[in-house]
Amino acid sequence: MPNVYVAGVGMTKFGKWPDKLLVELMCEASRKAMDDAQRYDFDMIYVGSMSPEDFTDEGNIATVITGHLGLVPTPAIRVETASSTGATALDEAFLAIKSGYYKSILVIAGEKMTHLPTPKVSKILAEVIDHNERKYGATMVALAAMVTRLYMKKYPLLSREILSMVAVKNHHNALFNSYAQFHKEITIADVLKSKMIADPLRLYDCSPITDGAVAVILISEKKKVKITGIGQGTDYAGLENREELISFRSTRVAAENAYKMAGRTPKEIDVAEIHDAFTPFEIIGSEDVGFFPAGGGGKALAEGITALDGALPINPSGGLKAKGHPVGASGLAQVVEIVWQLRGEAGKRQVPDAKIGLTQSVGGLANNNLVTILEAE
Amino acid sequence: MPNVYVAGVGMTKFGKWPDKLLVELMCEASRKAMDDAQRYDFDMIYVGSMSPEDFTDEGNIATVITGHLGLVPTPAIRVETASSTGATALDEAFLAIKSGYYKSILVIAGEKMTHLPTPKVSKILAEVIDHNERKYGATMVALAAMVTRLYMKKYPLLSREILSMVAVKNHHNALFNSYAQFHKEITIADVLKSKMIADPLRLYDCSPITDGAVAVILISEKKKVKITGIGQGTDYAGLENREELISFRSTRVAAENAYKMAGRTPKEIDVAEIHDAFTPFEIIGSEDVGFFPAGGGGKALAEGITALDGALPINPSGGLKAKGHPVGASGLAQVVEIVWQLRGEAGKRQVPDAKIGLTQSVGGLANNNLVTILEAE
Repeated sequence: MPNVYVAGVGMTKFGKWPDKLLVELMCEASRKAMDDAQRYDFDMIYVGSMSPEDFTDEGNIATVITGHLGLVPTPAIRVETASSTGATALDEAFLAIKSGYYKSILVIAGEKMTHLPTPKVSKILAEVIDHNERKYGATMVALAAMVTRLYMKKYPLLSREILSMVAVKNHHNALFNSYAQFHKEITIADVLKSKMIADPLRLYDCSPITDGAVAVILISEKKKVKITGIGQGTDYAGLENREELISFRSTRVAAENAYKMAGRTPKEIDVAEIHDAFTPFEIIGSEDVGFFPAGGGGKALAEGITALDGALPINPSGGLKAKGHPVGASGLAQVVEIVWQLRGEAGKRQVPDAKIGLTQSVGGLANNNLVTILEAE
Repeated sequence: MPNVYVAGVGMTKFGKWPDKLLVELMCEASRKAMDDAQRYDFDMIYVGSMSPEDFTDEGNIATVITGHLGLVPTPAIRVETASSTGATALDEAFLAIKSGYYKSILVIAGEKMTHLPTPKVSKILAEVIDHNERKYGATMVALAAMVTRLYMKKYPLLSREILSMVAVKNHHNALFNSYAQFHKEITIADVLKSKMIADPLRLYDCSPITDGAVAVILISEKKKVKITGIGQGTDYAGLENREELISFRSTRVAAENAYKMAGRTPKEIDVAEIHDAFTPFEIIGSEDVGFFPAGGGGKALAEGITALDGALPINPSGGLKAKGHPVGASGLAQVVEIVWQLRGEAGKRQVPDAKIGLTQSVGGLANNNLVTILEAE
């Protein structure tokens, strides 16, 4: 079975790109990855975008981007698993190389969202919520707030201050990431005085609305960074059907599969990108992938373990919170950050001696989650 | 490398299902496939749907269907390549089994369209057309009509009567398919007097708007029907950028790859399902997959070669034209028909001694096409 290596990565700056089409952002990220890999031909293209039909009235996006890149007649497929779409695109490319049929694959992920008014964006994002819950007015942030309340009831150690520290840490990290949407140091007080969105979640607990695109090139030839484990798990879209709410089964299953494939344990991970669309999700995610015991994620954060200079830095890129969250792109952007970390190219946010990295991406309200493990050879 | 076999297939009747949700149609097809395969557990699920976001305000469809089937936490991924989406879902499942990581995969494809007014459906379908052409008012049928005019100019042998015979043949075949949307014999005169949609294409040259879902179960254990070849090719979304218009490069590349993988030639195919969203597409498709020389598809049809009792029956199911065209499902429905043919279960439309079958699916205006070859062992 062939090994799967990362030959190149690229991304646009995340933020607001009112004058660019989604395909233009995707082309820019792709060309950067091609220059990074010094490869310009592929035998397959995977494209991740969560809802270009809704956000930009654009269908058939895999074909359109392939044409714009001048890569016709290369096969091209779009994949989607809500907000973990970018991770899924990588996952599919990984399997395609493992199949032995493809040797060089371009993976692209992007979303364009900021041109729409926020209520319209919220409505589109709410399409990934279970029908029964949506009809009572559920939104993503409202459901996340319920999960947070429940978590804080079971584990009172997770104070409002510690939640805020997720945002403070990730905004700090983003200062050193030129691709990040925000370059603004914030304090716990800033978070606590920001607008209430859905109690207890405030504006600064939520990732922003973002335009951006990312690309990764996978090949079967040896390179410095190797993908050693992938895992995916689902859960019921409706929270009412879940076995539990303050730990995500979809992450746990994904992590178990990824560790098993890679032959690794949580203790061996040097750096991680964890899906922090809402601040409590970073805490829950860090527990679900096995870094900390259930209820222990907040304490680890408060002790500085997950800070850039801690024992296990989480979200050195700034995370979805401060780097930005173009929904279909975020899962792949996490991978790009880990690649830079493993190649020692992360500049002022470099985690020293990072050899094994992990990404965890959340689809919808944690119902289609992926974990990927990458290693420097 | 593991072989890939079809363990079971299932589909809903194609037609109008005003009282059923898309997920209900998908569940029905899935349960039929499970009963057919006598398998109820899977290690991966692929879901093909072209635009559930637009047609039914439904996102995250792969996760939602997995929950409805009670198959959580099985990994589930949605794929999309416009109207060839169903074929792409099969293609991805094929690669996943070839990778060695997955042994039993449920592939589901479906679309729900008939609840919307026709102009709204046309608008959604037009999202797969190139931006530059769409802004001048291009619709799928208008572009198909231009292709047809050009073909008829180069090959005057393709008369208006022969085009009509595609519809007549496929409506005839559908009489013997209880899953088909239409059970109505039509004549050449009926086609010629049907409403003009985009000259020279009339209403009876166009596939209908349809609700429906299909499911196929793939496994690595030996079964009667084996998938031996898959191929995919893209072309520019914009017709203005194509090298040629009356033969589809995307099909030719897909066919070449599929024949190569299967070690087969067009002469060895016993039965085929060819994407006949518009009557001329069956003619062009039958040439592009190598059954007939360029310009020769119409003559072969007129001579009865592609009829149910001909030497190479095309669209025994009734095709998209008469069986119906739930866009994201059609590529997988073609595969179901070939499986039934190869298992000798096609009843009154059974092609005698069918051992090797081929499907050809068209994405968008023939810019993301797939060819699949299946064989009876």
